[in-house]
Amino acid sequence: MLIVADENIPLLDQFFEEIGTIRRVSGRTMTSADVRDADVLLVRSVTRVDRQLLEDSRVKFVGTATIGTDHVDVAWLESQGIAFACAPGCNAASVVDYVLSVLSVYAEKRAMEGWTDLSVGIVGAGNVGRRLATRLDKLGFDIKVNDPPREAEEPDEGFDSLEDALGCDVVTLHTPLTRYGNHPTRHLMNAERLRRLNPSQLLINTSRGGVVDCEALSSRLADADAPQVVLDVWEGEPQVSAELASRVWLMTPHIAGYSLEGKVGGTEMIYQSLCHFLGLPVRKKSGQFMADPALSKLSFTSSANARDAAQLAIRACYDVRRDDSRFRRWVLELPEGERAAAFDAMRRDYPVRREFSSTKIQLKGGAKELQQVFKALEFKLKL
Amino acid sequence: MLIVADENIPLLDQFFEEIGTIRRVSGRTMTSADVRDADVLLVRSVTRVDRQLLEDSRVKFVGTATIGTDHVDVAWLESQGIAFACAPGCNAASVVDYVLSVLSVYAEKRAMEGWTDLSVGIVGAGNVGRRLATRLDKLGFDIKVNDPPREAEEPDEGFDSLEDALGCDVVTLHTPLTRYGNHPTRHLMNAERLRRLNPSQLLINTSRGGVVDCEALSSRLADADAPQVVLDVWEGEPQVSAELASRVWLMTPHIAGYSLEGKVGGTEMIYQSLCHFLGLPVRKKSGQFMADPALSKLSFTSSANARDAAQLAIRACYDVRRDDSRFRRWVLELPEGERAAAFDAMRRDYPVRREFSSTKIQLKGGAKELQQVFKALEFKLKL
Ligand SMILES: NC(=O)c1ccc[n+]([C@@H]2O[C@H](COP(=O)([O-])OP(=O)(O)OC[C@H]3O[C@@H](n4cnc5c(N)ncnc54)[C@H](O)[C@@H]3O)[C@@H](O)[C@H]2O)c1
Ligand SMILES: NC(=O)c1ccc[n+]([C@@H]2O[C@H](COP(=O)([O-])OP(=O)(O)OC[C@H]3O[C@@H](n4cnc5c(N)ncnc54)[C@H](O)[C@@H]3O)[C@@H](O)[C@H]2O)c1
Repeated sequence: MLIVADENIPLLDQFFEEIGTIRRVSGRTMTSADVRDADVLLVRSVTRVDRQLLEDSRVKFVGTATIGTDHVDVAWLESQGIAFACAPGCNAASVVDYVLSVLSVYAEKRAMEGWTDLSVGIVGAGNVGRRLATRLDKLGFDIKVNDPPREAEEPDEGFDSLEDALGCDVVTLHTPLTRYGNHPTRHLMNAERLRRLNPSQLLINTSRGGVVDCEALSSRLADADAPQVVLDVWEGEPQVSAELASRVWLMTPHIAGYSLEGKVGGTEMIYQSLCHFLGLPVRKKSGQFMADPALSKLSFTSSANARDAAQLAIRACYDVRRDDSRFRRWVLELPEGERAAAFDAMRRDYPVRREFSSTKIQLKGGAKELQQVFKALEFKLKL
Repeated sequence: MLIVADENIPLLDQFFEEIGTIRRVSGRTMTSADVRDADVLLVRSVTRVDRQLLEDSRVKFVGTATIGTDHVDVAWLESQGIAFACAPGCNAASVVDYVLSVLSVYAEKRAMEGWTDLSVGIVGAGNVGRRLATRLDKLGFDIKVNDPPREAEEPDEGFDSLEDALGCDVVTLHTPLTRYGNHPTRHLMNAERLRRLNPSQLLINTSRGGVVDCEALSSRLADADAPQVVLDVWEGEPQVSAELASRVWLMTPHIAGYSLEGKVGGTEMIYQSLCHFLGLPVRKKSGQFMADPALSKLSFTSSANARDAAQLAIRACYDVRRDDSRFRRWVLELPEGERAAAFDAMRRDYPVRREFSSTKIQLKGGAKELQQVFKALEFKLKL
């Protein structure tokens, strides 16, 4: 069996060498000649997968190690009976870690005693939003969850209105970017909704830049009563408006989902789908191939209090301020013409980042409350 | 033997109950009647110790659990043959931890790859400055150390000029506040010297507020090419100029030395002096009486790199940004008339803070470089 794969998919050999012969090609320049004799095609978001690429081939399975599928003509694959798999949610936990790091730093900035006093409005409750809601709920935050498409299908789930979500201390966006349908999200945060946010509110966008009207945001942030804003995604990225950036509290270059677990999880998910398709047992797990994280364990004693310990552990694993500092120095301080390339370079050369779940927390004589908090945060608990 | 002691000295019983009977009194309101039948007097900085307090007493030993002795008429005690002990350097390690936390956050702000690329000028090389120099030197920083009084006594020690120290990326002040003598330090950082600092320099003051001319500083910081400034001590504290504060990068309310080890170390030092004076063995050590720190251990694996691991450990132990956020919220946002009381309250209610030396660092398969860095930082190393 011949597997043709984008050379930039991590851990190709580790997962796929027992299944077939692997031919590595450049994802950006892949042609029909590269895949003609392939049985299986594995891509990332840079390869357009459609009739033109595949019609002369004998490919029976296509996998993309990404959560998005915009680059794949799924309908055509289906019409040809070609199996297809993607990796929905593979980096959802990474985005949730990012949001928790932001919340922790924000609570410190406001010198709050208890960070769970913050109410959090979650707009979009899919792979990311749902997991975020679960963790925050377990931690004891007051949350409002808005998701009209899901609400239409599950009317009894108790979803909240957009107004309620936008009234929370923190508003965090987790929708796809859509222009059509009943609930388009493009410019969901328009001038009017931005105007209603007040200075003691924080808006976080890790979804897609265009979910916020960034021009309206920039002018809103010039007001004296502007809200605080954290942006990981930017309308028009990798171009970033210097004016907007200068008014944003924390800023990062679309790396909320960039944990190692998230990247490797994408490969694992298409591997599992392929095993399923071929009727093979699932023998490999991504955990086997990942080195121990640099910080393997944090030990707390019974003198620890739950909130301080949680915040310390979160930042020890991932402190968003580091990415913010680098973005300011390495991207924003450059002349405008060099910024887009620097934005992409920061993403390409992003350092290894591990999810909370990779770090062990040891609690000696630990109180129940500490255990609950670390479980809710999805750290690896050792008693 | 009767020991009269300020009730706010920590761990009085633990250290002194085997030596004599302890009578606790309020340090602020202590009178000669309180001490008439005492053999030993133990105070903090709030009690004035002089002829008026002691002439009718049989006190033979006075100890102050503080580094300063301004509140004690040492000459009079000597003239009466009364033994005297203070606690020089008891909180020096705490101040050094503070400065290292500042350096670590500053290096992140500048998105530096290696924080030891910063050169550091140390003005005043006594208990604090000397220890800071030792740690920074072991870590590989380029340091300049200025101390004319010590230089006069030890001309071959290779001290640097004030100009050289003030030319470093970071300038940190560790002199006493003096008005007279050959090298008075009051307004050492005057308008002229402040003018010569540039925007890529950082000035840290944890010594005494008046070592910097704070009015000149405030107006210097309004310039476009102002340096960055971190202040722990303020001319005229607990009053703080809101104008100055608004121009300072990081600010704290005179708590650089407020580690638990520093506080308890003061008691330990006068206990040791008293044992010595009485010819008793030194049986107690402060370590016996201190609970394990909330964060007892950090474990790193061989994938850790020395710089990231060091910075993570420093901030896990002490992150100066937390005190900065609290100071801004709890002191500066109050009406002017309430700020001095809030400044004192923040000091009085300061949370337990432990020194680096209290946290164990476990290195699994750890590289030599990691070991050296953690040793230099004075963490408790476990291999
Ligand atoms: N910044 C990053 O690194 C990063 C990483 C992963 C995902 N993302 C982005 O985060 C977003 C969420 O990802 P996901 O994996 O959870 O997607 P998902 O498709 O699993 O979930 C999206 C949810 O949004 C809901 N939704 C759609 N329109 C809505 C509307 N108008 N109002 C409220 N809810 C609406 C959907 O019903 C769905 O439940 C996506 O835009 C994704 O591209 C970013
Ligand atoms: N912020 C805090 O919480 C905190 C805690 C401890 C100490 N302190 C302060 O820090 C300062 C240093 O404390 P220490 O215990 O190291 O004091 P120290 O007396 O041990 O050392 C001071 C050093 O400064 C030198 N010095 C004097 N005049 C000088 C000058 N003009 N130029 C350069 N050097 C000069 C002295 O020779 C001496 O070596 C003091 O002002 C002390 O009050 C503050």
